Amino acid sequence: MKVIIVGGVAGGASCAARLRRLDEKIEILMVERGPFVSYANCGLPYYVGGAIEEESKLLVATEQMFKVIFNMDCRTNCEVVGISAKEKTVKLKNHLSGEVSIEKYDKLVLSPGAAPVRPPIPGLDLPGIFPVRTVGDSKNIKEWLERDIDRSVGNSFTGVDTVSKPKHAVVIGGGFIGLEMVENLIERGLSVVLLEKLDQVMPPLDPEMANLVKRYLKKHDVKVKTGDGVTGFRKTENGELEVLTEKGKVHPADVVIMAIGVKPETELAKMAGIEIGKCGGISVNEHMITSDPDILAVGDAVEVKDFVTGECTLIPLAGPANRQGRIAADVITGRKSKFRGTQGTSICKLFDAAIAQTGVSEKTLKKLGDTDYEKVYLFPNSHAGYYPGAKMLIIKVIFRKSDGKLLGAQVLGEDGVPKRIDSFAMAIQMGCTVYDLEESELCYAPPYGSAKDPVNFAGMVAANILRGDMPVIHWDSIGDSFLLDVRNPPEVAADPVPGAVNIPLPQLRSRLAELPKDRQIASFCRSAQRSYYATRILLQNGFKAVNISGSMLARSIM
Amino acid sequence: MKVIIVGGVAGGASCAARLRRLDEKIEILMVERGPFVSYANCGLPYYVGGAIEEESKLLVATEQMFKVIFNMDCRTNCEVVGISAKEKTVKLKNHLSGEVSIEKYDKLVLSPGAAPVRPPIPGLDLPGIFPVRTVGDSKNIKEWLERDIDRSVGNSFTGVDTVSKPKHAVVIGGGFIGLEMVENLIERGLSVVLLEKLDQVMPPLDPEMANLVKRYLKKHDVKVKTGDGVTGFRKTENGELEVLTEKGKVHPADVVIMAIGVKPETELAKMAGIEIGKCGGISVNEHMITSDPDILAVGDAVEVKDFVTGECTLIPLAGPANRQGRIAADVITGRKSKFRGTQGTSICKLFDAAIAQTGVSEKTLKKLGDTDYEKVYLFPNSHAGYYPGAKMLIIKVIFRKSDGKLLGAQVLGEDGVPKRIDSFAMAIQMGCTVYDLEESELCYAPPYGSAKDPVNFAGMVAANILRGDMPVIHWDSIGDSFLLDVRNPPEVAADPVPGAVNIPLPQLRSRLAELPKDRQIASFCRSAQRSYYATRILLQNGFKAVNISGSMLARSIM
Repeated sequence: MKVIIVGGVAGGASCAARLRRLDEKIEILMVERGPFVSYANCGLPYYVGGAIEEESKLLVATEQMFKVIFNMDCRTNCEVVGISAKEKTVKLKNHLSGEVSIEKYDKLVLSPGAAPVRPPIPGLDLPGIFPVRTVGDSKNIKEWLERDIDRSVGNSFTGVDTVSKPKHAVVIGGGFIGLEMVENLIERGLSVVLLEKLDQVMPPLDPEMANLVKRYLKKHDVKVKTGDGVTGFRKTENGELEVLTEKGKVHPADVVIMAIGVKPETELAKMAGIEIGKCGGISVNEHMITSDPDILAVGDAVEVKDFVTGECTLIPLAGPANRQGRIAADVITGRKSKFRGTQGTSICKLFDAAIAQTGVSEKTLKKLGDTDYEKVYLFPNSHAGYYPGAKMLIIKVIFRKSDGKLLGAQVLGEDGVPKRIDSFAMAIQMGCTVYDLEESELCYAPPYGSAKDPVNFAGMVAANILRGDMPVIHWDSIGDSFLLDVRNPPEVAADPVPGAVNIPLPQLRSRLAELPKDRQIASFCRSAQRSYYATRILLQNGFKAVNISGSMLARSIM
Repeated sequence: MKVIIVGGVAGGASCAARLRRLDEKIEILMVERGPFVSYANCGLPYYVGGAIEEESKLLVATEQMFKVIFNMDCRTNCEVVGISAKEKTVKLKNHLSGEVSIEKYDKLVLSPGAAPVRPPIPGLDLPGIFPVRTVGDSKNIKEWLERDIDRSVGNSFTGVDTVSKPKHAVVIGGGFIGLEMVENLIERGLSVVLLEKLDQVMPPLDPEMANLVKRYLKKHDVKVKTGDGVTGFRKTENGELEVLTEKGKVHPADVVIMAIGVKPETELAKMAGIEIGKCGGISVNEHMITSDPDILAVGDAVEVKDFVTGECTLIPLAGPANRQGRIAADVITGRKSKFRGTQGTSICKLFDAAIAQTGVSEKTLKKLGDTDYEKVYLFPNSHAGYYPGAKMLIIKVIFRKSDGKLLGAQVLGEDGVPKRIDSFAMAIQMGCTVYDLEESELCYAPPYGSAKDPVNFAGMVAANILRGDMPVIHWDSIGDSFLLDVRNPPEVAADPVPGAVNIPLPQLRSRLAELPKDRQIASFCRSAQRSYYATRILLQNGFKAVNISGSMLARSIM
């Protein structure tokens, strides 16, 4: 049995190593078009920024290691230029020697990854414009940032004749790579304009959560322009690079980073004549087998099932790619392993903050026409408020109305984000309901959490809603409710809500007569805790009462 | 309906607040023997150490708040001095006025907590010896640490006549409070001797994991004495305090902290004539109802079901206490809520490290005679090794041999501990197997994790064992196995294992003839990864091979 694996990074490398562990006898050939196998592409922005100092640190495993430890044929700078599924052969071209050869396979594993989107924009090939996909890309960017620019012929930035390093960057695309590049360019001392064609940065987040990310970027002096795509690049007479946008803006740039997303590399699949799915990735079944039973595919190039919605999706993440590689190896050696789909669990560092999500977003549910869900916003401390260093977490949790099943969570904050998103991720994997979250027993000591962890708290709030103890509404649907502000007068004075009547919570029981019995009373306070108490008092006194989820804090993010 | 709640901290306060939210009409009386309700007893060590500067920060909610917001009668400095379950009355004594009164109840909720164990040791009442249970205790310790000691009459510490603040502390008991006090006293600049009667610190951990904690304490200049209990205290002629031990040691001390554990306060239960369980806590059913249907009990005073083993247990933790309080309120108002038992999820900060556990320990399983389990040790990076700041995590995972169910996890490290222990905690709650852990999708970006998170990795290693892909043994059971060291020669030279034969992994396939076919070959390397590869090679070549779990790293902790 001979297996050829195309692509030697996350999915391919995992597959190759596991294949050898499972079977000493299989003949394995792994080919990688680039110069490195198994490199840390998630580290590239940090190599550019300088947090990772040595290029060698990015190389997780070497060609040599695959040969010696895993006893396989491993070839870098070697590209597949042809596949015959009928003959079960691939045509390989060695980019160093130019040599072309034909290799036969019994099973073929495709792990070509996803390539940065390159829209047909005039000037995209001008010097100073870079994607961030390979070690080579990041080296090119570093070199570019370290070279001197002659500003003597004219200078649209400083107006002073001089020579300097690049100072002004434009990052195009506000997803993971875009944001990581923004941070790392700022760390290097550059000023950064972030251009995003969509109305929000960080596409996996819901818009109101992404809006917080935008604010946070602005706080860190990033000029964020959402809803404005790039239309072209040009070089001025003085040799300066400029970025032109849909809205007619011109952004001068010493360097431009293209991070507008990736799309599955499907050239190989097309060569092989295998099916491409409706999301544009290679179609595979749960065993990672394509439409050709002898060809498997893994990683960013394939489309997989969304674990929560059951729909097809493209999720270019390292974790699923690695697990798919293992599963493909299992399947080739006769095991029945299955990929259970992806939850889209992901996290992004942004200065001191982390942005994380798992499961489905509200906008995805809306797109699917699913209305059987409810959401809550929470703003708890990352750990006991009385212990130094607690930061506010901003949490959005989405759950099914009919049975309480947890569907998705989005968490932002400067402390304790990974702890919470992983609890939610594990919960979603295991089919957890909000009633389970209420009863979760997570670690607590004052430096790390609270006796009621934010995850419990999310469960409690959600369960209160589903049990009917606390009907909620959101700011965008208050309609003609009677708005009851139960904050204390100084809070109200500092941030009043037009049209709301203020009755501080401690006075509520004695002032019920001031409230209408025939209208829905929507209470709010700062975080929705006191207004929850108010809602309980009102409901038990015969009022039609609802709590405004997240209250003033949620209002501040809308 | 009138409900009296005895004890106004975690469980009692949670119960009272929820009771009011659920029912506006119930008459609620909450009494607290001490001067404060709902104070942050988990913060006390940090108040002593100075991380929490103001006493007021420890007061989460006030008597006034319970009265005004929750419309209840709330009395501090008020102790229950008698209960008649037959009459359904309690006798209350106000410690400030001396007034005694009788109150009738329909439902009584006991939340008296657990008291520091006070063994009958001579000299325990000498000045300078303190428990750490209440705000008052921590204030007393602070005051004691801030006063000057006249050393002029003789000085067993420095030999120099002078006046100084307390410099030398003895902490008795190496559990959570003991360790937190050690850290906080060191932070204040004291030298600390930690005395622990048992053979290990941190009782919830297994001994080999606790041993690492002991080493870590020593690295921070704590003099740790395990296996030596205190037998008495005395004052020398010079007025100095001394701690005497079972082993005949004498430790001079300017201050002594008693933290040898807590036991349920059962005096009230005895007054009420309700059942005490075999663990010594108040007996309750899953609805938190005691043997008297009108008396409920919650918090540290009750014994509950261990979620994993089903056995009764005493777990004095804030999280479960809060949840039990909520459940008691639910039950009183006619809901069917149940407490699902406790997993013992807990965490302790110790200098830069965190020590955490969830689920059952190996020593508990051994005590129960349960042999249907296996364990693995792992030593992964807290996040991608190529990103700065990664620290080694030390993880022990225990799982059921017959079905792969996760039973317990212990995690130590200086980075990323809360993230992992909460994933394990959620996994145990939801009945997760190691096969599920393999497929978990946890958050990954280089600053926070790895594409294969340590939690996945634990699942993969465990699943490899259960599938028979990687038989393992542990250092304490290698017997007369043939010991195969697959490390590289420089590693072997630096830390050789007597009796082991060295064949570096890259040479293994070509040197199989040197190995015996008739003996079990136990392979090891540094972390058990290369020896896993070796084991796979050997098994497929007809050898009887096993991997030594955790290899040299596990050996270093035994």
